[in-house]
Amino acid sequence: MTENLRLYGYWRSSCSWRVRIALNLKGLTYEYLPVHLTREGGEQHMEPFSKLSRLAQVPVLEWSEGGTKHHLTQSLAILRFVDDLVADPPLQPSSPLLRARAWEAAEMINSGIQPLQNLSNMKRVSALGGDARAMSKDVITRGFVAVEEVLAMSKGRYAVGNHPSITDCCLIPQIYNARRFDVDLEAFPTIRRVEAACGENEAFRAAHPDLQPDAVAP
Amino acid sequence: MTENLRLYGYWRSSCSWRVRIALNLKGLTYEYLPVHLTREGGEQHMEPFSKLSRLAQVPVLEWSEGGTKHHLTQSLAILRFVDDLVADPPLQPSSPLLRARAWEAAEMINSGIQPLQNLSNMKRVSALGGDARAMSKDVITRGFVAVEEVLAMSKGRYAVGNHPSITDCCLIPQIYNARRFDVDLEAFPTIRRVEAACGENEAFRAAHPDLQPDAVAP
Repeated sequence: MTENLRLYGYWRSSCSWRVRIALNLKGLTYEYLPVHLTREGGEQHMEPFSKLSRLAQVPVLEWSEGGTKHHLTQSLAILRFVDDLVADPPLQPSSPLLRARAWEAAEMINSGIQPLQNLSNMKRVSALGGDARAMSKDVITRGFVAVEEVLAMSKGRYAVGNHPSITDCCLIPQIYNARRFDVDLEAFPTIRRVEAACGENEAFRAAHPDLQPDAVAP
Repeated sequence: MTENLRLYGYWRSSCSWRVRIALNLKGLTYEYLPVHLTREGGEQHMEPFSKLSRLAQVPVLEWSEGGTKHHLTQSLAILRFVDDLVADPPLQPSSPLLRARAWEAAEMINSGIQPLQNLSNMKRVSALGGDARAMSKDVITRGFVAVEEVLAMSKGRYAVGNHPSITDCCLIPQIYNARRFDVDLEAFPTIRRVEAACGENEAFRAAHPDLQPDAVAP
């Protein structure tokens, strides 16, 4: 039995946000442990947190099982684990084809957009004299062209089908970042329709960065 | 029933290689359709392929079902789909904790290393005057520190447990790239041990870039 669920995260980290949505959808309560990604060079690079996440990334899920403490990194691995932990509601569609589409669109965001548009790569581009904001806008826009096409195939209420899945968990935080980088969302009607559906779901609403204890007022 | 399995790939693409291993492990036969990633700016950016992969990436898996042709992108989504298609041997461990570790290490490579070290990001760094080779070496080395730690937990013959999984599919191509970028592998004894185990498995051997029809002699 899994006990003492704790989530190390940061209010504005899109990958932490994905996990907050999933835990809320499953009705799992957890302790939230903020890791400040920008203060004094970033707490993610300092002990004790840096020992929990060798890549110096949030989120990290922590739990106890039979007296042993476990830590799991990588948001999609955490979503997969949470889906094993509590079966209902499932975060992956039951049909193999729709499940494949759910992973396809989630990975377009998880490996196709986010690693290039995250804080550490933006710092890398800026250090070389590049325009990190323009790069981020371009990466998100290209990625959303691909995501829109996958989502448009399913024609469900949510990203792939009529129930929230791992794809919605990844999509909603990425839309927030799209707006931060002035991506024109007019070209993505399906993405905007899915955003509206998620906006009516309390599990998504409660996961919003602005509602987290470490949120910084604008 | 899924018919006419075809794989669009490139001999040296690490993500195409992941899928070749998985198809071999499952004993699935497929037609291999090379997409040349560097000739004349890259065939991935040209029609008809660019319509199959909006992110202009290999691999793409194609199959027919009930007269309809389907295309699936994103290597981890393809591995997940192939694992649904043919149950045996499974590509994911059966215990939830080990399965979580399999995804964790696979995603460390898939989203933590590969997107930064791939051709398009190396071109981006070079265009800004940065040292793309040094960046790639650094990204792989940092990523392997994290992967080594996860693999060392399981103490199995393969990456996570005693059977090949999605993690091995991702790891073997990444080790090849580590060597290309002069990463010192001495610090990663578990990764090297897993590499040796995979090297004795014909499914892995047959998936090697040098054995593909589009391989270029050194």
